[in-house]
This record gives sequence, C-alpha cells and structure tokens, in this order.
Amino acid sequence: MRVKDEIKQEAIIKATVALVNEIGFASSSVSKIAKRANVSPATIYIYFENKEDLLVSTYIKIKSCLADALMGNFDTSLPIRDTLLKAGNNLFKYIIAQPDMFYFTEQFANSPFNNDKVKTQVEAAYLPMIDLLQFGMDQKIIKNVPLELLLAHLFYPIFNLANPRINPHFQASQQNVELALSMAWDAIKR
Amino acid sequence: MRVKDEIKQEAIIKATVALVNEIGFASSSVSKIAKRANVSPATIYIYFENKEDLLVSTYIKIKSCLADALMGNFDTSLPIRDTLLKAGNNLFKYIIAQPDMFYFTEQFANSPFNNDKVKTQVEAAYLPMIDLLQFGMDQKIIKNVPLELLLAHLFYPIFNLANPRINPHFQASQQNVELALSMAWDAIKR
Repeated sequence: MRVKDEIKQEAIIKATVALVNEIGFASSSVSKIAKRANVSPATIYIYFENKEDLLVSTYIKIKSCLADALMGNFDTSLPIRDTLLKAGNNLFKYIIAQPDMFYFTEQFANSPFNNDKVKTQVEAAYLPMIDLLQFGMDQKIIKNVPLELLLAHLFYPIFNLANPRINPHFQASQQNVELALSMAWDAIKR
Repeated sequence: MRVKDEIKQEAIIKATVALVNEIGFASSSVSKIAKRANVSPATIYIYFENKEDLLVSTYIKIKSCLADALMGNFDTSLPIRDTLLKAGNNLFKYIIAQPDMFYFTEQFANSPFNNDKVKTQVEAAYLPMIDLLQFGMDQKIIKNVPLELLLAHLFYPIFNLANPRINPHFQASQQNVELALSMAWDAIKR
C-alpha cells in the first residue's frame, strides 16, 4: 500500500509542476491537476488539504531533493573550499538535468505563497550548509558577513547561469562551471 | 494628444504589471487588463497588437527603465570599480523602490515569452555596461571570462538580496549593500 501511495503522490507532484509551469499558479486548479495526474480530485484531497497545501508541499519536496543533491556527498573532512565547490557543481548538474523543477521553485519563491512558515521548513533541509558556512567564518576562511550575503553570492550566479530560459546559450562546460565556481569562491573567501 | 497617449499607455502598463503579479500570465487577458486600467479593450489594441505584444512591451519598457537607473549617471572617467559599484548601488535602490516591477520581470524572464528576439532588444539597452566590462577585460582589471559569468556574479546576488519575497528580512543598510557590492567585485576582479 505504501509504495502505491508514493507512486500516486509522485504523479500528483509531477502534474502540479508541469501544469504550473504551463499555465501559472492562479489557473492551476486541483481538478485540472487531478486530470493531468490521471487521478480523481478526491484522491488529491487524501494527501493534500487544498490547493495551497499541494503547491507548498510540492515546493518543499523539490527543495528537499535539491538539498540532497547539493549536500548528498558532503565530506566535511575535506577543505571547506573543496566541499563548497563540489556542492556548487552538484547544483549546476541538478538544475540542468531538471529545469522544470527549477522553473517551478523560482516561480514559487517569487509568489505570495512563499511565506515565513514555508521558508523555515525549507531552511531545515539546508542546515548542514549553514553550519559549514558558519564554521568557515569561525575559522576566518570565509568573510564574516550576514549569512544571506554568502548564500546569495555562492548560489545565485549558478541559479542564473544554469537557467536555460534566462541563459539558453550558456555552455555549461566543465571549464565554464569551474570558472563560475571559482568566481563564487573569490566573492566569499577572506 | 501625444501626452494623453503616453498617460494611457502608462496606465495600461501599470495595470498589466499589477494583474500579472496577482493572477499570473495565463489568466491575465486583454479584457481584464483593460478593466483594471479603466480603458476599453479597443484602446489597448490601438497601442498593442495582442496580449503577447502587450506583455513583451511591458517587459522591454521596465528593462529599459532599469537600464536607465543602472547606468543613468555612468561616468567612465572614474575607475571601473567605482563605476560598477555605483551601478550596483543604483540597482539595489531600483528594486527596493519598485518591487512590483521587479516581480514582473523575474516572472517574465522565467516564462516562455522570453525568447531570443526579446533578449536581443533588451540587450541593446545594456550596451554601455557590456562595453565597460569588455574594457575592464582588455585592461586586465576584470577576469577574462565569458560575459554571462561576469553579469551573473555582478548582478544576480543583488537580484536575490533586494527581492523582498525571497529575502524579506534582509536589511539593505548602507553597510550591507557595500558588503554585497564589494563581494561581487571580488568575484569578477583579476
């Protein structure tokens, strides 16, 4: 039973991402998402309270997968620079492999659904990264600045470069990815 | 007559931004935008061919205003670092003063409307910035890397930090803005 549930939930989340990317948040109703996922609206209401819960759950789910991709092979015995560059590399790969997931999260992040409660839930998945940056600041390897500044300079250039809708002609070659990551490191290192 | 035309066009563009931010691209029809702008749909069709033309024109208009804000007081007799930091400061101010305009452009940039033709038109407004970065590379002041890498590291962290939907608690104090800009400079300088 559990496996069947998971397959259904997976299909609902995929349909949500596809439909929102096509027609936007406002027009994506539970009944349209159900049709797309090939389930009845009643099935959606087994797993999700309402449309907002479905959208928020989809966002948190993707952000957790992104956190796994980012920090999946975190090896904190390596120098912090190496660990961060590996994470950045993982992020590039994730966005390029799954642009649809990324368009959804970018739209959600810029929508009124992205409130403090959602942000707190997402942040929990990123604690290892936050701890690592704090460790880097304590060790005087990384600039001692507000955390948002470190995150913005480390990850936002990658979000921009790897986004095919914004930079369709950017070549994510190993050389260009390494250049981008070493520039991000130059921004945050002391 | 011309003044009256401009006021009407301005009202239509403002209504487009407000409605798209509220209900998204797909649901924003010409008739709803007309109602919001307090004009008839026929009036909109005097100035814009169709819904896509209206959305694209709104995007290009805002991006041109942003270019003016960014490079309005470009003084190329100053050191390149000072000119770029001033531009970054202008960008922070523009986004914080007009978050609605910024939400619209972020949504548009991530939508299928953002095609190569639109990108080419927008790029034209940013030529002075592109020329300045090229000059910095020629002078070996700035890293000699693809232009997209310079733009991503210079401006995307600001887009992220100044966006109140993503970073509602970020304090855009003079100190934090200066920190952000000097980090961006560290990323691109040789």
